[in-house]
Order: sequence, then structure tokens, then C-alpha cells
Amino acid sequence: MTFQLRVERALTKSPICIGLDPDLNKLPSAFKKEPASILEFNKKIIETTCDLAGAYKPNFAFYEAFGAQGWEILGATIRFIRSAAPETIIIADAKRGDIGNTAALYAQSVFHHLGCDAITVSPYMGLDSVQPFIADKNYGAFVLCLTSNEGSKDFQYRTIEDKKMYEFVAEKVSGWNNHRNCGLVVGATHSDEMAAVRKISGAMPFLIPGIGAQGGDLESAVKINFDGQKVNAFINSSRAILYASGGNDFAEAARKAVLTMKNQIEAVILKNKEVK
Amino acid sequence: MTFQLRVERALTKSPICIGLDPDLNKLPSAFKKEPASILEFNKKIIETTCDLAGAYKPNFAFYEAFGAQGWEILGATIRFIRSAAPETIIIADAKRGDIGNTAALYAQSVFHHLGCDAITVSPYMGLDSVQPFIADKNYGAFVLCLTSNEGSKDFQYRTIEDKKMYEFVAEKVSGWNNHRNCGLVVGATHSDEMAAVRKISGAMPFLIPGIGAQGGDLESAVKINFDGQKVNAFINSSRAILYASGGNDFAEAARKAVLTMKNQIEAVILKNKEVK
Repeated sequence: MTFQLRVERALTKSPICIGLDPDLNKLPSAFKKEPASILEFNKKIIETTCDLAGAYKPNFAFYEAFGAQGWEILGATIRFIRSAAPETIIIADAKRGDIGNTAALYAQSVFHHLGCDAITVSPYMGLDSVQPFIADKNYGAFVLCLTSNEGSKDFQYRTIEDKKMYEFVAEKVSGWNNHRNCGLVVGATHSDEMAAVRKISGAMPFLIPGIGAQGGDLESAVKINFDGQKVNAFINSSRAILYASGGNDFAEAARKAVLTMKNQIEAVILKNKEVK
Repeated sequence: MTFQLRVERALTKSPICIGLDPDLNKLPSAFKKEPASILEFNKKIIETTCDLAGAYKPNFAFYEAFGAQGWEILGATIRFIRSAAPETIIIADAKRGDIGNTAALYAQSVFHHLGCDAITVSPYMGLDSVQPFIADKNYGAFVLCLTSNEGSKDFQYRTIEDKKMYEFVAEKVSGWNNHRNCGLVVGATHSDEMAAVRKISGAMPFLIPGIGAQGGDLESAVKINFDGQKVNAFINSSRAILYASGGNDFAEAARKAVLTMKNQIEAVILKNKEVK
């Protein structure tokens, strides 16, 4: 199945993306402080949320911190998502970017070895560093465009040939999107800029971090990306869902947090439809 | 020991950096086509070259392609380098870059779990994505500035506030270098631009890819970075050393290739001294 169709189906199910950033220091006290606990925690979270999520986004750093064992846990988590929710997109939040022959190996690792559908990549090294991730129309890449952090000001807001760098990146990626398997990472902490990027990039799906702990604006993110049928973006939340409760009711609390987010999104869509 | 002093000592030993990019399809026929062969191959290469190398640079993609097993091999390779050549710098060629709390976990993975001295990072997300890698003066980061690939033209050569983006990055990183543990990645395929970046960045060490298979200019790289005492750059070669011979004499051939590179570098230094 093409990535374009997979995304269409996943977003029709739900624009909610759950970031799997498991932190041993934040797991409920029922879990032992050892890496193996992460897989058990992830499974509980996935079981109680997968009917509500359009995507899961494991953040590779949280697994690589435990070396080879972390990679085992990452692989097992991805297999668990696949069997629990085959229609849900799995986005490798790995922010890779390297020359062609190296990027091809990262693609092999993330798509074929681990079984993800998409990956986040950095644009800095240009087309040949992104190409191996979008060469097969069944897999896709979300290219960093405007990130949610403070450091986005250092380069992304600079003017490059009469436009902001994030706009320049959005234009470039639009030109690379022959297989309709490119997306953009646009942080929820920048609503006006997100609207500008949406204009440039047409129907390209966004991956939106920054809701919750980072203070991004959910309402604007939904408004800007609602295309009349669906929200054309995976809106990510990690910490606000995973650690909704630090107690043994963490899984129920996580489900409740996702349901709250779902209701908020639907309310914005309804309001938006009425206004129109 | 500070990263600055480690680099000083490593470069005084040798500016040659050996890229450990082991490709199963290119290993000599004596090796079985299975991931475990990579460790045996790496060990032979390290044994026969470590007296001549100032740095080793494992490229993470070549290990991640084998998942958890690849990470085991990567860890074992790094431990082997450390015991065979404790004075040699180990640079994680991982090109990471993410928001602060995530970058801190990558730093934990690469410096503490794996035991590398430095990492390559992308500048696109700005200072807070680089900070966790340079917060401890005993470890360092080589920030992508001007890469050796074709795609470097897509963004790095664009004009940003009256200068080229790679110059802008070099200036920014110079401002971040309080602990003298920042370096820059500058490809050997762009000699004139490398000279410009050297002027901007003072005594910052470079990591120079692009010699060999990518056609970069060794002579210029040495000339530009010779500071009167040492070449202030790790000049990387991967494929030309690892696969100098496809036969069972691969390790001797690798040593010969490194010796040839050493002689070429010394000849340029000698010529340069005479001219002066």
C-alpha cells in the first residue's frame, strides 16, 4: 500500500500521534527501574490507546540510551504496535540525515529491519540525504521544517533568498514530493508560521510536535490543517499522555488524556464547520 | 582530560581519521556474510592501523542496519579501539540533532553507554539541540557546516544575511565554543570554501570527509589546516582504506593505504614549510 494511502487512512481514523518517549525515571512505581520495564509500559500504553491513535512516534533517543538492549525494546514495541493496530502509522523519530549511501542504510534499518512506515529527517544535507527515504512510495519521510524548540530561531527563522528558511525548506520539499510520501515537521508553538507553511505545501501531511509540555496551540493546529474531511496532520503528544498519572492507573489516565485531546480536536472541527 | 587536550594530542599523533563503515557485501571472501563478521573485520583493520590513526569514526548507519546486533558490534568495536589505542579519538558519526531533553539522551547513549569522545551533529535545530553534546568539556561535537555531497548545494550554499549558510553556521558555532570542544565538518570536495571557513573559525578542529571515493582534495585540506605544528583537522578516509584489497591481504593493504596517505600529508607539510 502506498504511503499516501496509508496516511490518508490513518488520518481519517485519528490525527492523534502518541509519542513513545519512555523515561525510566518517570515510570509508575510498580515498574522496576530497569530497561525491560519500558517494553511492558509501552505495551500497556499501546493497548489502551491504539483505537484512538492515527500514529505512534517512538523517539529513538529514549531507546538508544540503553544501547543494544534499547534497540531490542524498540523493535519489540514496533512489532507490538503493528499487531495491535495494523492501520496505525509508525513514525521513527530519529532525525537522520547523511550522504546517499549512508542514508540508504538508515532507511534499511528503520523501514526494513525495524518495520516503521516513516522517519523524521533533517534537511541540512539536501536532497540526496532525503532521497533514500522517499525512493520507495510505500514509505515516507517527515522533513524538519520549523521545530518547536527555542533553537529554531538560530537558523530556521533566518532569511534566505527573500524568505524564511522554514519556508524555503517547505518549497524545496514540495518539489521533492513526486511519490506523495513527503511530509513536514512543523511545531505547534508557531501558529502563524504554520499557516504560512500550509499555504506553501498544499496537501502535504504535517507532523506537529510541541502540544502539551512544550506549550503549543492545539486549536490553531487543528484549524490550520483541517481540509474539510480530516485534519491533515499528525498532532503529537508524548509526556502529557504517557505520564498523565504517575500511579498504577497510568494506562487508564493515558486513555483519558487521549480522549480529552480527541474531544478538543472534534470541538474545534465542529466550530470551524459552523463558522464556514 | 578535556576534549581540547585529547584532540591536541590525537592530532599531534596523526591527522588521519579512519572511517569504520563496514559493508558486508564488500568484506573479503574469507568472511562469512553475517553481521558477526563485521567485528572481526573491524578488529583486524584497527590492529593494523591504530599506530597511524589520530581518530576512528564509526558510521552508525552501517551498524544500525543490523538492529540490536549491530549495536552490540558497534559497542564492541569502540571498546576494542579504546584498549588498542587509548590516545586515539573516537568520533560517533551519527549526525544527531533534536530538542534538548532528547539530545541529552543521545549524548548519554554515545558518550557514556558507547564510550565515544565526540559526535557529529546537525545544526538545523539550533543551539539547544547541540548544547547537551558540549555541556561537558571532556566530550565534543563536530557540527555539520559544509558537507561533501551534491545536496550541500540545496541549503548550505544559499545566502543567509549576506553570507553563505555554511559561513553563518561556522560563525554561530564559534560563538558556542566556550569549552573549546566544538568542531566543524567541512568536506574536502570544497577547497576554496574550506579556506573561508578556516578564517572564520580560528583554531576549531575540522572533521574532513570526502577524500578518496568522493574525490576530495587531500593536498588542499592539509595546506589549509596546517597551523605550523600540526594539521588541525581529522582527515577521514573510509572505503579507500577498508577495501584497499578485496583479498585476504586486506589488513596489510589497509595499512599500506594509510601509510601512503601519511606520506602524502607529510610531503604537503614539507613543501608548505619550504615555501614559507
